[in-house]
Amino acid sequence: MSGIWGKNLELSIFGESHGRAIGVTINGLPSGLEIDMDAVMIEMARRAPGQNELTTPRKEKDEPDIVSGLLDGKTTGAPLTALIWNTNTRSKDYSQMKRLMRPGQADYPGKVRYDGHNDYRGSGHFSGRITAPLVFAGAIAQQWLEQKGIVVGSHVQSIGTVEDTRFDDQKNVTVAQIAAMKREQLPVFDTAKKDEMHQVIVDAKEDKDSVGGIVETFVLGIDAGYGNPFFDSVESTLAHLVFAVPATKGIEFGAGFDITRMRGSEANDEYYYDENNQIKTRTNNNGGILGGITYGMPIVFRTAIKPPASIEKKQRTIDIESGEDADLEVFGRHDPCIVPRVVPVLEAVTALGLMDLILGRDKA
Amino acid sequence: MSGIWGKNLELSIFGESHGRAIGVTINGLPSGLEIDMDAVMIEMARRAPGQNELTTPRKEKDEPDIVSGLLDGKTTGAPLTALIWNTNTRSKDYSQMKRLMRPGQADYPGKVRYDGHNDYRGSGHFSGRITAPLVFAGAIAQQWLEQKGIVVGSHVQSIGTVEDTRFDDQKNVTVAQIAAMKREQLPVFDTAKKDEMHQVIVDAKEDKDSVGGIVETFVLGIDAGYGNPFFDSVESTLAHLVFAVPATKGIEFGAGFDITRMRGSEANDEYYYDENNQIKTRTNNNGGILGGITYGMPIVFRTAIKPPASIEKKQRTIDIESGEDADLEVFGRHDPCIVPRVVPVLEAVTALGLMDLILGRDKA
Amino acid sequence: MSGIWGKNLELSIFGESHGRAIGVTINGLPSGLEIDMDAVMIEMARRAPGQNELTTPRKEKDEPDIVSGLLDGKTTGAPLTALIWNTNTRSKDYSQMKRLMRPGQADYPGKVRYDGHNDYRGSGHFSGRITAPLVFAGAIAQQWLEQKGIVVGSHVQSIGTVEDTRFDDQKNVTVAQIAAMKREQLPVFDTAKKDEMHQVIVDAKEDKDSVGGIVETFVLGIDAGYGNPFFDSVESTLAHLVFAVPATKGIEFGAGFDITRMRGSEANDEYYYDENNQIKTRTNNNGGILGGITYGMPIVFRTAIKPPASIEKKQRTIDIESGEDADLEVFGRHDPCIVPRVVPVLEAVTALGLMDLILGRDKA
Amino acid sequence: MSGIWGKNLELSIFGESHGRAIGVTINGLPSGLEIDMDAVMIEMARRAPGQNELTTPRKEKDEPDIVSGLLDGKTTGAPLTALIWNTNTRSKDYSQMKRLMRPGQADYPGKVRYDGHNDYRGSGHFSGRITAPLVFAGAIAQQWLEQKGIVVGSHVQSIGTVEDTRFDDQKNVTVAQIAAMKREQLPVFDTAKKDEMHQVIVDAKEDKDSVGGIVETFVLGIDAGYGNPFFDSVESTLAHLVFAVPATKGIEFGAGFDITRMRGSEANDEYYYDENNQIKTRTNNNGGILGGITYGMPIVFRTAIKPPASIEKKQRTIDIESGEDADLEVFGRHDPCIVPRVVPVLEAVTALGLMDLILGRDKA
Repeated sequence: MSGIWGKNLELSIFGESHGRAIGVTINGLPSGLEIDMDAVMIEMARRAPGQNELTTPRKEKDEPDIVSGLLDGKTTGAPLTALIWNTNTRSKDYSQMKRLMRPGQADYPGKVRYDGHNDYRGSGHFSGRITAPLVFAGAIAQQWLEQKGIVVGSHVQSIGTVEDTRFDDQKNVTVAQIAAMKREQLPVFDTAKKDEMHQVIVDAKEDKDSVGGIVETFVLGIDAGYGNPFFDSVESTLAHLVFAVPATKGIEFGAGFDITRMRGSEANDEYYYDENNQIKTRTNNNGGILGGITYGMPIVFRTAIKPPASIEKKQRTIDIESGEDADLEVFGRHDPCIVPRVVPVLEAVTALGLMDLILGRDKA
Repeated sequence: MSGIWGKNLELSIFGESHGRAIGVTINGLPSGLEIDMDAVMIEMARRAPGQNELTTPRKEKDEPDIVSGLLDGKTTGAPLTALIWNTNTRSKDYSQMKRLMRPGQADYPGKVRYDGHNDYRGSGHFSGRITAPLVFAGAIAQQWLEQKGIVVGSHVQSIGTVEDTRFDDQKNVTVAQIAAMKREQLPVFDTAKKDEMHQVIVDAKEDKDSVGGIVETFVLGIDAGYGNPFFDSVESTLAHLVFAVPATKGIEFGAGFDITRMRGSEANDEYYYDENNQIKTRTNNNGGILGGITYGMPIVFRTAIKPPASIEKKQRTIDIESGEDADLEVFGRHDPCIVPRVVPVLEAVTALGLMDLILGRDKA
Repeated sequence: MSGIWGKNLELSIFGESHGRAIGVTINGLPSGLEIDMDAVMIEMARRAPGQNELTTPRKEKDEPDIVSGLLDGKTTGAPLTALIWNTNTRSKDYSQMKRLMRPGQADYPGKVRYDGHNDYRGSGHFSGRITAPLVFAGAIAQQWLEQKGIVVGSHVQSIGTVEDTRFDDQKNVTVAQIAAMKREQLPVFDTAKKDEMHQVIVDAKEDKDSVGGIVETFVLGIDAGYGNPFFDSVESTLAHLVFAVPATKGIEFGAGFDITRMRGSEANDEYYYDENNQIKTRTNNNGGILGGITYGMPIVFRTAIKPPASIEKKQRTIDIESGEDADLEVFGRHDPCIVPRVVPVLEAVTALGLMDLILGRDKA
Repeated sequence: MSGIWGKNLELSIFGESHGRAIGVTINGLPSGLEIDMDAVMIEMARRAPGQNELTTPRKEKDEPDIVSGLLDGKTTGAPLTALIWNTNTRSKDYSQMKRLMRPGQADYPGKVRYDGHNDYRGSGHFSGRITAPLVFAGAIAQQWLEQKGIVVGSHVQSIGTVEDTRFDDQKNVTVAQIAAMKREQLPVFDTAKKDEMHQVIVDAKEDKDSVGGIVETFVLGIDAGYGNPFFDSVESTLAHLVFAVPATKGIEFGAGFDITRMRGSEANDEYYYDENNQIKTRTNNNGGILGGITYGMPIVFRTAIKPPASIEKKQRTIDIESGEDADLEVFGRHDPCIVPRVVPVLEAVTALGLMDLILGRDKA
């Protein structure tokens, strides 16, 4: 039912792709937090469509219109609401959408769920566009985290079968490096892979098809002791949010599925005191989390993003009005790969999840 | 902070491994539900340790002691509380546990989180033993689901590198087959793999080491239309619960991480009307869920379970009292593989998550 | 912290009196509910200021601008968000407000709570104006309840010391009568009292002072069996919402404080079967609720509304910047009595509370 | 539905009067809190029945059996669960209870709510006995508050028509005085009223009847700035909990219903700097709360408690099985007045509500 999430930081999202606006209300922001709107806009732009020749050309500025909770650039402590107006919603013929259930989209389950009353235009409330308010909220959370020395970064782990090297294989990822990667359309560690990935996307586009990929997200500077056992574990919190992002089909922390093929003696991350007497682990197979709680090493997880379901290629489906099988051709230009645009969304929800946990930790 | 989960069905869990009792309170059970306690006990037994020569010999009966919410075998509608008494908690010397932080366990992050006040004996509240109340609650949820024709099953997808065939490769999995698999210690589709898996566990045990594996869980008989977009999606709900299960490091739905290497035309599950005019999809790469909502095909997901961190092999770690590196040898017999025992836990949380979503759907 | 309320129907409110907009997001509305916007506007108008010579002249239309969740006049099932734009927020000199803490207002506690960052202009987020979104949401809830034959009504029980007769003294309150009372500025049973009440308000206004009063709210047509024991009782739910309405200082159900002076034999409402074999009680001292649950008689409660704190009369207070006592004169025209305008707010929150409980009951 | 309450401190209560046990799980207690069990037992004893010749003779020790969350007398940070075993539940004939709906009790609405499956013995989950776990939890919350200098006290404001003087009429209520009052069965400011009140109870008892009364609760030592506007206001939080206490019919803060008969100039509490440069108000008509937030003066509220519904006097009611009107005589000895026993319950829920708000405030 609910577009509401959070315990200590609470979000309420709303909006439909072709309605008047989408947006979010954030509850629980500390008062007096100064918002750097330029930094917010950079995150919004990373997610927005129409950035290059590869993505869908719908050019929405995705500018957040803050209507409450901010005074003289600082949070007031009251609920902060931002809207993003839908300016590019030409009235077009959506009648086909009411009949033909697009494979891989929410058309059919959405229709059943809402007894046919859901807004079917452009996926309505199921649209990936609703992630824009999440990016807005997450940008604020990232600013709050940065004051505590916590930085969230990501790289494109893979596009199709082209793989980047992993975070764990890097010597020392710096904050400056993360900042530089945020300016990249295809942020990777091994820059040689960028062109290959790009080519995979171009090829799919030429075939009127689409491709997926994996994003690896990492959190630097987080101390030990955040999170909880069981229901409010770091993994539960982050996985809950990550699966709220459309197109996500999997998540794994640390060594993830690979850890199932290790023995305990290999999987266990041995502790040691480093030269500054800080507690560290020699490996990080548990991705920074044990018993649902951080242990002071980077949080690392990977998210599987499926290829966009909207493709121009002809597909078979059903016509739910006639009750017969039918052909479907989705006209218009489509995004052959959303992985790069999902990167800032994953960073945003990671920041939101951590902020919620840290606020919860600090209170008792 | 919280041992509380749920929106429409609410759980409150409690207990420490070596405290007096562990347990759960369930809110939101419909009144008049007749509980089949024999069926509950079968689920409890599947999770309990000491079942065979491979598992840890701590033989606890794990018998739920229901103290409220049940009258004449039926739910009253009031909160239902069950305790499981800790009968096998010999007073032994735990002083080492306070000093030596076991790798791969919650000792260190738990100590930081609770400022050293957490119950450190046998992992305390972090113990996998706390999953027993979840199995109890889940057994009741499964009975409620079965009345609606919904059945949750699982098989061991892999132990180490030995893999079973996948659910999607089966012709037709029947309810009777699922029931039979629930009686197996190592439930697999390809029975030839059972001995291989068993041998992997035996080998690890002989090496004073441990192994992990993957569990595949599936839900049959669930109609289209359950779940929600975004925060209360089926995936968010199930992943949240699955990551509350200790030792989980990853989850993937449908084709999961493999879908990132498909093109959209392959990944999209095409709809058709079957011979009974039911809406089906030819493939099930989305694992029964689109837009966070079921579409009438089986829900399918896989969970990565890491090898148990407690091993007899000598490991390096830190002595947090002396502030120096140290050797650790965990004496006593240990469970070389918990994958089979996690199977009923994953089925339990799946049933709990679905019951919560279905109750939520039915209300409006 | 939170502007979020509800379990089965969830509200998220936002806005500051002199910010850009105020509003609400409603989660959990059933899809396909047709909204009668004319009926909504009638409720909005009842609450809006500037209706007559007595109230404050700020003439805001309070027109809800629905930006999501509605398609072709029907709810889509997705979050429904409505904004009310603040159009009448002339930039005026609020510097005095930052210094002089108005007695009876939230200025001082709000300043402490938010470390001085709260929006101090026109009470900011503490403004009674934020009840407008509640009236909007409540108007929708009332439409939903009416489909089930449940009607919420109110009358002004008292202004100052002038008292109307009580609901329990009426022979038979009809739905038509309630509808007629909703069109009255001072809805009373004993119309002779209307002029007296009016005069009390006029007198206060002439004295640059203000008056309070009591509102009695009643719910007709509600069946037995809604609500819950303890935390989610009908009284807990309604009282929670009623105390969220600024200026509320007390609430009592049924005979309320008077019941403390009765003996049990008098207070107990005896059951009987009426001529249609319906279960009724001869008295209704418990106000329709026993054990937190409705018993089929009207829900009745009274709410104490204090006199508006903003008065033109000179008052003593503190200057928090100079750290000295000071005089305060609040210029401009003020509302000498908000009781009539609170009536629709109380009806709104009553409807919201009941809808939440009924949705919760229906689900299990 | 729910026996769960709280945002930052979460309670989960359970149990039925004649089931095996009642109890509570507390989530969110800070770790390392040392529990003074003697102080807890004093609170339990104040609420327990059978203390003197006036109350019901069921002599239950109400000793909390803590099964989790406590190690060496200190909280571990994990959920703390306490049970109170029902030892005095002689099997007696409850068949009459299934048929005859006792007026003023939850029998009838409870039966409808739970489709006849609720535990009808001794009111089941609706029993006032379920307040014992609340007193236990509240005793811990009071210890936590006391460390911050916050003390919760109460006196019996009235029994029937016999009234004590009000808190606001006292010169200076000290912590020692509150402690002394906690040792009184009928705590009053004007000790001359104690015998009168006692006589009112004795008279009612002799008439096989019962009496109600009002409790006034006050909180000393609470700073300005706790609470929130709207839904999480101090009043909403406390009223929610107070109405969860069976037999409550009304609550008023500060001057309460009397404030409706004041003018604004009288009702407004003027601020001033006292001799220590502390901000104070000359009156406290708002009961320590403005805009939902404390302003540094004592919190004051009064709660209306109805006369116990169980009386030996003959009453008319319905036989729900035969569908006819019937006579009812409730045999056995009954409590003619529960007001004194409700005093510690109200103090408990006040402490719980404040602890939740303070934890919430501290986190951001």
